[in-house]
Formats: sequence, C-alpha cells, structure tokens
Amino acid sequence: MHKKLFIPGPVEVRPDVLEKMATPMIGHRSKDASALQRRISDKLRKVFYTEEEILLSTTSGSGLMEGAIRSCTAKRAAVFSVGAFGKRWYEMAKFNNVPADLFESEAGHATTPEMVEEALSTGKYDLVTITHNETSVGIMNPVEEISKVIKKYPDVVWCLDTVSSMGGTKIEVDKLGVDICITSTQKAIGLPPGMSICSFSKKAVERAKQVPFRGFYLDLLSLYNYIQKKDYQYPSTPSLSHMFALDYQLDRILEEGLENRFARHIEMANYVRAWAKEHFDLFADERYLSNTLTTVKNTKNIDVADLNKKLGERGFQISNGYGDLKDKTFRIAHMADCTMDDVKELLWNIDDILGF
Amino acid sequence: MHKKLFIPGPVEVRPDVLEKMATPMIGHRSKDASALQRRISDKLRKVFYTEEEILLSTTSGSGLMEGAIRSCTAKRAAVFSVGAFGKRWYEMAKFNNVPADLFESEAGHATTPEMVEEALSTGKYDLVTITHNETSVGIMNPVEEISKVIKKYPDVVWCLDTVSSMGGTKIEVDKLGVDICITSTQKAIGLPPGMSICSFSKKAVERAKQVPFRGFYLDLLSLYNYIQKKDYQYPSTPSLSHMFALDYQLDRILEEGLENRFARHIEMANYVRAWAKEHFDLFADERYLSNTLTTVKNTKNIDVADLNKKLGERGFQISNGYGDLKDKTFRIAHMADCTMDDVKELLWNIDDILGF
Repeated sequence: MHKKLFIPGPVEVRPDVLEKMATPMIGHRSKDASALQRRISDKLRKVFYTEEEILLSTTSGSGLMEGAIRSCTAKRAAVFSVGAFGKRWYEMAKFNNVPADLFESEAGHATTPEMVEEALSTGKYDLVTITHNETSVGIMNPVEEISKVIKKYPDVVWCLDTVSSMGGTKIEVDKLGVDICITSTQKAIGLPPGMSICSFSKKAVERAKQVPFRGFYLDLLSLYNYIQKKDYQYPSTPSLSHMFALDYQLDRILEEGLENRFARHIEMANYVRAWAKEHFDLFADERYLSNTLTTVKNTKNIDVADLNKKLGERGFQISNGYGDLKDKTFRIAHMADCTMDDVKELLWNIDDILGF
Repeated sequence: MHKKLFIPGPVEVRPDVLEKMATPMIGHRSKDASALQRRISDKLRKVFYTEEEILLSTTSGSGLMEGAIRSCTAKRAAVFSVGAFGKRWYEMAKFNNVPADLFESEAGHATTPEMVEEALSTGKYDLVTITHNETSVGIMNPVEEISKVIKKYPDVVWCLDTVSSMGGTKIEVDKLGVDICITSTQKAIGLPPGMSICSFSKKAVERAKQVPFRGFYLDLLSLYNYIQKKDYQYPSTPSLSHMFALDYQLDRILEEGLENRFARHIEMANYVRAWAKEHFDLFADERYLSNTLTTVKNTKNIDVADLNKKLGERGFQISNGYGDLKDKTFRIAHMADCTMDDVKELLWNIDDILGF
C-alpha cells in the first residue's frame, strides 16, 4: 500500500505531475530542450521574485549548496547554522579546503541579525550562508531582518538555503538581496527528488570569476556560462524527466497563485501548530516557526516508531526527529500540494491511534 | 510528433520503462528505499561482471567521472583521450587542482597499450583514466590489451568511462581489473538521463582514504561509506524515480540475457557499418569500432542538418558530428532497446531521403 507522505521530502507528488516524469525523451542539444529550460527559468523567476538567472542542476540540493560555497568564496565564508543542514554547509567548505567559520545557534533557536552583524563586521568574510528553513528543527529564520545587515556589506555574496521552503512561502530574492538562492524539487515545489535549482546574481557571477578551482560538475559559473553561450542548455545531459515535470508543475503553481499557495501553507502550519500545542508542545522558538513543517516536542514520550508503524498501516507516513532529536521530537511536513483536508485526515488518525 | 532517437544519448526509452518513472514517492530513509538500492546494486553487479560495491549518483556521468579522478588521485593522473569525453576528464582534473597529464590520440584512433605502458612505466602516476567508448568519434578502445599493461602496476587505480557502452557490450570489470567503472542511465542501459553508476573496488576505497580534499557531493568514498553504514542509502536525497525505473529495466535486461543483448548490439553495429561503407565511409580506425554507435565519415558532403530535418519530419533523429567534426561526420546510435527493425527502418528512410 502506498503511504501518503508527510515527511520533509520527498513529498507526496500529484498523479498528474508524476505522469509528466514519464514523458518520452528528446535530444538535450535540441531547440526543444532549450525552449524547455527557458520556459522553466522564466516561471521560476516568478516563484523566486527575481530577475537574475536561474540555474538547474541534476543533483539534490546538496549539490548546489556545495557548488555555491566552493564557486563563490574567494576569501572566507561565514556559515550560520540552526541545525543539520546548516552544519552540512560547513562540512562542504571543509571538504573542499574552502576557508570557513561556523556560527551555530542552539537547537530550536534562530540565526539572529545580531550574530550576522557581529561576524560580518570583522571584515573577514566575503560569503555568508544562511538556512532559511531548517527541517531538522522546524525553524524558519528571520531573513528580512538578516537582509538588512547583509546589505551593509556589498562585497559579501549571500547564499540562502530555501530547499524546504521555496514555493511554500514568499521569499523575495531580489528585494532581500540574496545572490544564490537554492532549492530542490522534492519539497515545497512538489516534484520527485533529482534536481536542484538556484538563482545566480551578477555579483555571484563576478565573484566566481575570481575563484580559481571551482571544479566541473558543481561549478555554478559553468552552468551560467552554458546558458548564455548555448541558449539555455546544460553542460552535460540533464534529467529531462524532471524538467518536463517541473515545466508542468510550475504552471499549476502559478495557476493556484503564489499568494494563495503561501496562504494555504500558513493555514496548514497554524492548524498543525495548534494541534501540537494541545497535545504536545512545539520544539522551536515560536517566533521563528517553519511554515512548511512542524517539529513537535515529544513531551508525552510516545513511541514515535510505533506511531509511524501504525500510521503506515493506515497509509500515512510522518518523520521521526532528526539525528540526536530522533525520539525527543517528531516531524509533520505540510508542504507542496498537501491540503487542509490531508492534514486533518492525518491528525485525526494520529488522535485515533494515540487515543486523544 | 515524437522523434525516435538514434542519437548517442538520451536514447529512446521503452514506454513501460518510462511508466516506472511515474512511480509514487517513498521516503528515502525507509527500509523500502534500502531494499530498492540493494536490489539495483545486486543486478548491476551482474551487468558489470563484478563483485565490488556499486555506487549510484544523482548526476550525469560527468559527476562520477569528476568524483573518480578527484577522490582517488593521490599523486598524479594519466588521462588518455580519444575525443571530447576523454579530454573532459583532463579538464575535471585541472579545475580541481588535481595533478594530471593528458595523452591524446589523433581523431579516429584508439588509445594503445603501448601508450599506456610508456606513461605508466615512468612511475609518475597512481591513477589512469581510459575512455572505453568515445561517442564523439565512434571508437571503442582495446581494454583487454590495455588491462594487461595496467595490471603490471598494482598501485595504479584504473578509472574506465563506459558511459556509452555498459549494458550494450561485455565489460568484465573484475577480470579486467577496473577499479572504478562508470556508466550513466541514458545510454545502453536504456533509461532517461539523471543518474550515474559506478563500481568501486577495495583498492579505490583505500586510495580515497589517502586523499584529503574529496569534496562532498561527488566524493565516492562518502557514497561508499553511506552504503555500508546506512544499509544501502544515499547521503542526500537520490532520484527515486530513476531508481524505480532502473530496478525494472535491469530485470528486463537480465531477462533478455546479457549475451543476447550484446549480440543484438553487434548485429545492429554490423548492419550500420555495412551501410556506411556502401554509401559513405567509417570515420574511426576499423579495428576499434564502437558497438553502440557508428560515426559515419561524410564523404559525400551531404547537408547533415537538412537530412536530420527531413528525418525529423518522418519521426526520426540522428546526430551531427561532435564539435569540429560537426559537418565532416554524422552519428547513428544503435544501443539500449533499439532493435534491428528500428535500424532498418531508419536506414531505409535515410536512403529514401538521399535518393540511394
């Protein structure tokens, strides 16, 4: 039996979107392939609220995160982390011999503008990475406030991880001044995993030109140059299946209307938060809660694996806590094409299993 | 109208295989995901004739090629090239600051065992890259003879690019002593592009441990370690759609029988070669012709773009020459699930268009 997914990616994908993954192949050097990538990029610019170039990468979000920090750090990177995926960015720097420092917030707490100010004011850094939405703890960082700080440092390239939020909440890339805004197909955009996406500002282009060893496959400048020189093509063979499905799904997203889509995510988040507070508690600082998933503090010490097993028998799947938080929390994602009815159905079943 | 693809990737994918790309999602940290990757790896070991570990990467073949040369060169790499994809390996080394030398053969000529012997006997190299099948020129290198040379140097890690041949011709990885044998889904295996595959020997594992900066996403040792520690899972979120389709298609390949499959490829190759020699000529050295595609020397100076346009109107697509060879050659791929009937139908149409 298929389990309806309420985990923070891969998300449940609509049957009509899945069907597009089965589109017959075309040549990746054809005019049709160029037109496809151009169409996708034009639509993504609307979702990202940007006029900058859009890069597609046949990798998970990690591929573009690594590409960003490696391609665009000329001096030293300041990596801000509120959980597992923030720390991953620091590891990526370390494993590539890219100079970087890690600034961690305590579990459940946000990256504050003050922390960013303190780091950047040293003048040591020319790149900063921020996690917008951290699925390991359920935090959505205050990027508007952080933006005001980063804008004071025009030489700093800003990389923002919106892997689990883009398409589910409003992120105005150009207004915020984000240089490389990264997302992935299998979260709030509502596709299967296998492709990642980023915006790439002119400042980022210029910076990458100064970095000598950017590698090949994850080199963001090479992706950018290929788009310019080869009319929206990809340096190697991209996952055309994901591109067909993305092209279709972006039409659906724009048809729903971005504001409607964001409002639906907030409505679902509020509903799950209220439920969590009624029966358990919220794990994260309530000022910075994620709109796309809720990390529930397991105050009743329930057996999460057992709950998930019983949910599985009924055709649902949620997620245990991440890493050290495995039994201390559990996570309910409410993103992409998930609806209020889906959320209500899930919570009704949890209530029924736990005897609430 | 869909065009039946006779280009060297992406290839024509059977409708039942495409349908598997539309399989609903599962959690990538679930037991089902582990079982899926384990099943795929077991079947791939048969196709690769290996008992070593199999790594999957959500990238095009270039991703694993870069991962191999970067993860496993501790001293210096000897890169042998017979065309564009051999040269690409040298660029990958250069862009990652990996010490490497390029040994090029003239266009249309093979990498000879003597060339490899001459390079390795200097003692300068601890890694060698060979292209098995080079789609830019239609060469299939004599890997059995080259194997005898490389085996004399037990400290050398051998990387073999079989992106466009694995699954279409017999490559006995363990018998040859190949340490990292790389392929990709969109060629002779017969899937859409978006995933690459390699075998990874114990010697390669030990070598990678000595290399300090292997990066993150393309680090082959990290893919390997995750399989061991996490029971056949992937460090980030893999393209599950490709894995579903690969699982299915490998059953079909094994059902056809590997020897039958290879024989079918030889039969198609012989037919296209005979046709090419009747009307044009072969571009590559006839001792080293590829079994999966034929590069035809455009001796009649036909307008290849015009031919392809007319073929397109009839629902077929072939490929012009690669790079500098654009008009001097054209390429007909005959790989994956392509049949003799498909090949005959294509050539009949070319004959009809060209008035042969």
